[in-house]
Amino acid sequence: MKDNETVLITSSQNAQIKFARSLDKKKDRYFHNAFRAEGVRHIKEGLDLKWKLLSLFVSPEVQDRPHVKEIIQIARVQDARISVVSSRLLETITNRENAQNAVGIFVQKWAELDDFINEKTIVALERPKDPGNLGTIMRTIDATNCRSLILLEESCDPYSTEAIRAAMGSSFAVKIAKANITNFLKWQTANGFLLYGTHVKSTRLHTETEFSAKSILLMGNEQSGIDDELANACDALVKLPMAGRADSLNLAIATGICLYEIWRQSGFQGRKS
Amino acid sequence: MKDNETVLITSSQNAQIKFARSLDKKKDRYFHNAFRAEGVRHIKEGLDLKWKLLSLFVSPEVQDRPHVKEIIQIARVQDARISVVSSRLLETITNRENAQNAVGIFVQKWAELDDFINEKTIVALERPKDPGNLGTIMRTIDATNCRSLILLEESCDPYSTEAIRAAMGSSFAVKIAKANITNFLKWQTANGFLLYGTHVKSTRLHTETEFSAKSILLMGNEQSGIDDELANACDALVKLPMAGRADSLNLAIATGICLYEIWRQSGFQGRKS
Repeated sequence: MKDNETVLITSSQNAQIKFARSLDKKKDRYFHNAFRAEGVRHIKEGLDLKWKLLSLFVSPEVQDRPHVKEIIQIARVQDARISVVSSRLLETITNRENAQNAVGIFVQKWAELDDFINEKTIVALERPKDPGNLGTIMRTIDATNCRSLILLEESCDPYSTEAIRAAMGSSFAVKIAKANITNFLKWQTANGFLLYGTHVKSTRLHTETEFSAKSILLMGNEQSGIDDELANACDALVKLPMAGRADSLNLAIATGICLYEIWRQSGFQGRKS
Repeated sequence: MKDNETVLITSSQNAQIKFARSLDKKKDRYFHNAFRAEGVRHIKEGLDLKWKLLSLFVSPEVQDRPHVKEIIQIARVQDARISVVSSRLLETITNRENAQNAVGIFVQKWAELDDFINEKTIVALERPKDPGNLGTIMRTIDATNCRSLILLEESCDPYSTEAIRAAMGSSFAVKIAKANITNFLKWQTANGFLLYGTHVKSTRLHTETEFSAKSILLMGNEQSGIDDELANACDALVKLPMAGRADSLNLAIATGICLYEIWRQSGFQGRKS
């Protein structure tokens, strides 16, 4: 159990601190297959949902609080490295003033499309660019009784610090798969999902669309919308009504409105409150 | 017309450049009663809607394009300062790589509550903290046939660069008033608006609520929700159904879903597409 004891780190040049900080960069996240989550509550979410914790940093001010002792205990069982570091060092890791009192490093998880065969509603995003939007969408997926997200083609990283922060702990509740368009369309038709794309040129409103019991909601890139090949493959193209000078909604807003409409049509099945 | 001719600026120490850059700071925006908008399209929005332009910066690469010539022409009529600056200097102003090709400095506008007497749907935000959320909400207000926003108590600045960017030009279409809670509640009851607050403890879903023809949608702060005094003053408290591990939605998402529900109940009146 020696490796698993709590150690005190005081230098910003410590290798563990450097490792934690490096996870702001995509190539380092990819290389280590890891990502950073901040805050006791979000770390607890990850542990509850059986994500593998590699390393835990807590500040001395909170290390004896019951919630923190609880995550330290689980971290011990998981053989994670546990370090006590000053609030100042936590700020160094997170590059944020008033940093959270705890930082966890978890192993990334990627699902296969076949993991989603039994799902009812899946969200597919084509080439999303903004990690804040992506995180907010993960938070909304979790809130609307869904759990599955497909990223089509080159997308921003759902494990980036910005995405994880915007997801507010919900990223641990969402399974994420990557696919190219060809494989995605093959899988979708083979498994009986109907594909609903949102498209400005559609004349059918989201509220006039009867979504199938097995639906994939497809949202295009922030700037360019859905690729033509994908749009042609959709079982239905829907649009959100628009007024005013705006000619589109923010991607996360549009996704949220569609998800709530799909969920409303199911009678808000699985609602907890 | 001498003052109004196009000048070429080449130094980052030029007073106009420094002024434009200073508008990232709230105190400078307040002092000058001004803000910055980026991109030809957004500047055009502001000009079309009769916002007062103080200063216009364009890069030499685009100064002869028809859209750019058009805004330069309107800027001339408005007696705005017009400067041609390199793309590198535009990056200095906006603190962004790949800056937009045009930056405009506009005068801020603030509405009074009484300007909203004839409105149908108004959004009131209590102490919003995140300017990205605030800008995204302005974009959604514009898209749902509304035009009025009330900021209650100490709120983040709708004229901050982050809010203006997130609003994507829609900030020019939204009238914004500031109020304290006491004055707001007096005005709301005196003018026949019903107040709908969103509250986690409510049991009434947004889709089960019949919104009045004169409604104020009240959304609380990102962390703490609606203040008790305000919650008690509401004509109805509504909630959005929730599932999963998430215990709340992002503020802009929750506002968007409520706005689309209110608009749906009016048959999407005023819809342009």
